[in-house]
Amino acid sequence: MSHTEIPGGITAPLGFIAGSAYCGIKATNADRPDIALIYSPQPTVAAGTFTTNKVKAAPVRISAINLRSPDVRAIIANAGNANACTGIGGIENAKRMTRAAAAALGLKDKQVMVCSTGRIGVPLPIEKMEATIATMPGRLNREGSQAAAEAIMTSDTFAKSVALEIEIGGHKVRLGGIAKGAGMIDPNMATMLCFLTTDAVIDKQLLQQALSVSVEQSFNRITIDGDMSTNDTVIMLANGLAGNPPLRSSTPELEDFQRALDRITRNLARLIVEDGEGVTKFVEVHVNGAASFSDGRRAAESVAKSTLTKCAWFGGDPNWGRIMDAIGYSGVKMREELVDIYYDGVIAVKGGMASGTPIQKLQEIVASKRFTITIDLHLGAAEYTVYTTDLSTDYVKLNMGE
Amino acid sequence: MSHTEIPGGITAPLGFIAGSAYCGIKATNADRPDIALIYSPQPTVAAGTFTTNKVKAAPVRISAINLRSPDVRAIIANAGNANACTGIGGIENAKRMTRAAAAALGLKDKQVMVCSTGRIGVPLPIEKMEATIATMPGRLNREGSQAAAEAIMTSDTFAKSVALEIEIGGHKVRLGGIAKGAGMIDPNMATMLCFLTTDAVIDKQLLQQALSVSVEQSFNRITIDGDMSTNDTVIMLANGLAGNPPLRSSTPELEDFQRALDRITRNLARLIVEDGEGVTKFVEVHVNGAASFSDGRRAAESVAKSTLTKCAWFGGDPNWGRIMDAIGYSGVKMREELVDIYYDGVIAVKGGMASGTPIQKLQEIVASKRFTITIDLHLGAAEYTVYTTDLSTDYVKLNMGE
Repeated sequence: MSHTEIPGGITAPLGFIAGSAYCGIKATNADRPDIALIYSPQPTVAAGTFTTNKVKAAPVRISAINLRSPDVRAIIANAGNANACTGIGGIENAKRMTRAAAAALGLKDKQVMVCSTGRIGVPLPIEKMEATIATMPGRLNREGSQAAAEAIMTSDTFAKSVALEIEIGGHKVRLGGIAKGAGMIDPNMATMLCFLTTDAVIDKQLLQQALSVSVEQSFNRITIDGDMSTNDTVIMLANGLAGNPPLRSSTPELEDFQRALDRITRNLARLIVEDGEGVTKFVEVHVNGAASFSDGRRAAESVAKSTLTKCAWFGGDPNWGRIMDAIGYSGVKMREELVDIYYDGVIAVKGGMASGTPIQKLQEIVASKRFTITIDLHLGAAEYTVYTTDLSTDYVKLNMGE
Repeated sequence: MSHTEIPGGITAPLGFIAGSAYCGIKATNADRPDIALIYSPQPTVAAGTFTTNKVKAAPVRISAINLRSPDVRAIIANAGNANACTGIGGIENAKRMTRAAAAALGLKDKQVMVCSTGRIGVPLPIEKMEATIATMPGRLNREGSQAAAEAIMTSDTFAKSVALEIEIGGHKVRLGGIAKGAGMIDPNMATMLCFLTTDAVIDKQLLQQALSVSVEQSFNRITIDGDMSTNDTVIMLANGLAGNPPLRSSTPELEDFQRALDRITRNLARLIVEDGEGVTKFVEVHVNGAASFSDGRRAAESVAKSTLTKCAWFGGDPNWGRIMDAIGYSGVKMREELVDIYYDGVIAVKGGMASGTPIQKLQEIVASKRFTITIDLHLGAAEYTVYTTDLSTDYVKLNMGE
């Protein structure tokens, strides 16, 4: 089954409209839109995944409740203020955002999902936001995806958008998504937000299942600095306008849909990593031969989060000793003398020792903008991949405060 | 009971002699001693703790075996090469180091502990080292602690040495220690080594118990970059020359000894943190009110290892939102609305929200070279403290390779 890339982001699927407005939420008076609104005039089913951080921003708490609503119609989101660590007042403000959007669109409050990203611990300028949101329905249109994608940017350097068209039972079906960056993107703004839409006919339970699988293969595989935000949110809406035969469990059609969704979320995840400020290299860390899935993940994440390893990559230093070290302290089952490590397929470590590959060869690989580290533990059949970055002096400068 | 600081490091306790030699082990021809030898002509009992990294350097494996010997007499250690990830040849070379020291001192191989620190994955220049070690007995003396401390330095900027005198049952008892730095100290050299001596009369089992408790309160509480070395080793020798009544379990005398040992290991641990290259700030992270000891530790370590938090400290930015975030993703039991956070006793967060303390007040504190973050989870009685640092642009530069 072919997946065709199409333009249009979240407004590529039939029926969805979107737009943005400038409200002036940021402390620094950035002269660009900071509120996004996405709307489906048709009924939808909604799915979502939220940060597992125990410190959850107010909008995350409200969206998690509203997700239970059988007919979510809109997503209201702002940049510049995370509405996190803001207590009862923050909860009230998140509700007021949903109420303002619902009033403007003629919906019930619970039909609106809400997201915020930005500074922690500062109350939202809610009156100003309510006034702005009231003006937004007139700004929504079928070409509004880019405007919405730009409005949720914090210090992202480009808007992140992907859409695909596939065929299901003779019907064209579209999926689209926009996202904003994760990790150390800016002082106080480390949130990953992703909004996805589709015109596929799919029930709520299957949509949630497909989204959870997809997030696990994409956004849960990226790490830049290992810090998980209080606001991370992925929301997906499906309005059924494609008219395809309803997707069913364990069918080739659902598999096609899953593959398309996975492609979208993986592409957005990669764009997020590549756009991390201070990032100079994109690194895939594959672990093969792990004794268990969980061991594969722990080993890969330990390497991907090792400050020493990431600094070495920044400097173009292969330094496989630091990779061995990070595997060793990850706590996974391993036998040092079985470990092989490859850089873009070139063997660096054979049986836990230097392979004899000239260091110059490995240095050439680590000097490039993208490379892959493959670690084979030779203990089992489990594997895991993490997408990560180097750690640069610019990263530190960008995160040392105002 | 008074503890008096005395000079002399590991040769402050009666009977121990030490010294160093230059062998030229480093790739860069640093013109300073790189092999240390510590020797007790009298029988000793030995205790030790080793890295829990599953990738263990060859000398760690050999020392862990030789620690079982009832009469350890010497420690041979080199800087410049870690003898890690060196396979069977590395094991043989670690044995040859013990054999060379044993031959020079008239001991059995198993009476010698061996340590290495430096580059990973490169074979030791063992013939050259054997020749050097053979000359070392003549260099050992009762003032040799400083020479030994300097010989194990990698990029440490100063030798780390502490000694104390206490009284036990009317007898003067001395404890001394030297250490070299931990964490990101230098490319490829991230090992913490600590050698401790005492002339107390104490049996092997009690000594091991005292050392394990002490290491848990000191070296296990420091984190700079979260990377744990393949070579970390703490060794303690007790020769009984003080002639005190033998120390016994659950006595005030043993408590005194423990307190003195804790003071030495904590001081050495602090010196290691302060001397970390690229470190501009020394930060204590206390967690109070945790539901369990393990929760206290996880919360404190999560904050101490958060790249974003450490960058903010470097920049003098209080940024308590990043601390809340790091507690939240640590996975410990917490209720956001109960969390209080203090900077040097000044409240920054009250009940999970901004306390109202002017940001300037907090900025002043974070601008200083040392400060304490106290987090109260208000859930239980458990507490934990970690000693850590900021994350600076110099840290990255020092670790990006040659």
